[in-house]
Amino acid sequence: MGNNGAIGVFDSGLGGLTAVRVLKKILPDEKIIYFGDTGRVPYGTRSPEIITKYALDDMNFLSSFGLKAALVACGTVSSVALGALRSAFDIPITGVVEASAKKACSLSKNKRIALLATPATVKNAAHEKYINENFDGYSVMGIGCPMFVPLVENAYVARDCKVTQIIADEYISKLREFSPDCIILGCTHYPIIREVILDSARKLLSDDIQIVDSGEEAAHEIKHFLEQNNLFSDGQMGCVEYYVSDEVYGFRESASLFLGENIESVKKIDITSYHYTENK
Amino acid sequence: MGNNGAIGVFDSGLGGLTAVRVLKKILPDEKIIYFGDTGRVPYGTRSPEIITKYALDDMNFLSSFGLKAALVACGTVSSVALGALRSAFDIPITGVVEASAKKACSLSKNKRIALLATPATVKNAAHEKYINENFDGYSVMGIGCPMFVPLVENAYVARDCKVTQIIADEYISKLREFSPDCIILGCTHYPIIREVILDSARKLLSDDIQIVDSGEEAAHEIKHFLEQNNLFSDGQMGCVEYYVSDEVYGFRESASLFLGENIESVKKIDITSYHYTENK
Repeated sequence: MGNNGAIGVFDSGLGGLTAVRVLKKILPDEKIIYFGDTGRVPYGTRSPEIITKYALDDMNFLSSFGLKAALVACGTVSSVALGALRSAFDIPITGVVEASAKKACSLSKNKRIALLATPATVKNAAHEKYINENFDGYSVMGIGCPMFVPLVENAYVARDCKVTQIIADEYISKLREFSPDCIILGCTHYPIIREVILDSARKLLSDDIQIVDSGEEAAHEIKHFLEQNNLFSDGQMGCVEYYVSDEVYGFRESASLFLGENIESVKKIDITSYHYTENK
Repeated sequence: MGNNGAIGVFDSGLGGLTAVRVLKKILPDEKIIYFGDTGRVPYGTRSPEIITKYALDDMNFLSSFGLKAALVACGTVSSVALGALRSAFDIPITGVVEASAKKACSLSKNKRIALLATPATVKNAAHEKYINENFDGYSVMGIGCPMFVPLVENAYVARDCKVTQIIADEYISKLREFSPDCIILGCTHYPIIREVILDSARKLLSDDIQIVDSGEEAAHEIKHFLEQNNLFSDGQMGCVEYYVSDEVYGFRESASLFLGENIESVKKIDITSYHYTENK
């Protein structure tokens, strides 16, 4: 007995693919529906009100597929709007905050954890709240990194990309006095430039710095949830369907490059026609 | 006899303020309503369909003020959606393409004109079409500059900003073989980093390079239009009201810095409630 419902995953753009890549590997028999809100990316420089509004629309679209679980593969939405999503939809929803915060606490020896994330996520301090409530003696310092999402979305992702290196150094250098031994990549776009961030952190902080990838940890949490609730699929072929809110062309190209394989099925949808209203 | 109606101006974000700055100077007695769609910025990396949709909403909001004229202070919308706006609204609408193209033709001696603009504007080639239809012997080369808007919106605007210099050099170096003597800043965000662009162009192209600011030229065109149609205001106090589609805080700060004066009146509106439908 299993459940052949789909797992819904969404992000503001390409970032959530860092979670999809892991999901495909650890749950090869599952059907995954991915939505990237490329018509409204970026999220992390916007206000909580706008982010929540967009997130409700996104989940409203995904919920039309009859999901058995959903993964909010966007650090900003997970930090700012997870409560609103859980109130609005009767679907088990996993965000990227808790799993990455837990992992960081298990890795950090000096109990000083850095969070690199969008300005909205840093302002919301969801990681810090979760860690303070569940673990003793840890301190968290968040650094808002508003340029990382545009850099990733515009393909400034090579390890030797000078611009991305300078911007990474600018953000990482703010952590020197705090001297963390573990960094949470609190936005799922950031693992795409993981090597640049790691080089900068080794240079400016410590050779032994640990990096936590939010999307990866959340993917493992989804697997754990399916296992515990006996919701694994039952003999179906695993697949991923991709949906975006702007032209498929740019997304297909970047996504294929990033996932290391061709993406066949990408469809454009009109996200404004999935506008969420409370009394629906 | 005059007309005390307002002049509506909109852009995806901060960029249109480069036109407002000039409008305030040359038309000090006019009432200006500015809308910056900060909840959906940037426009120039999106598809024509999404850009047109957003532009119709924006003008729909502005039209609620009973305008005597409108200035589309967004290079992307002026290139991609001006026709759609003019069909949909019974308001005299000026874009930034024609005025800047005319000015560039008057300045260029070697008849090779470069266009720095968003990818959407470059793809649309509205400047080139207009020049080919109205002037003889000019060639136009467009370079898409997708990073300039995020850099400006995130305040990487100082003349000595290394990152903006590197990105500017990357774009300008694509023009070396073409060797233009005039560059149109086809996006109204770009004059905010005019000095960086100019330094790069002088270094990589020529000391005598001319720069055309689209917003400035369009502001002069609006003045000319009011003059010709006897629409100048009649003794009212000039003022600017600012509206945005996300939090006012960030906008107020950046805008004040850029305009060199405090902005008192900024209001946030819900742009999705001004959704344009043909049969309205």
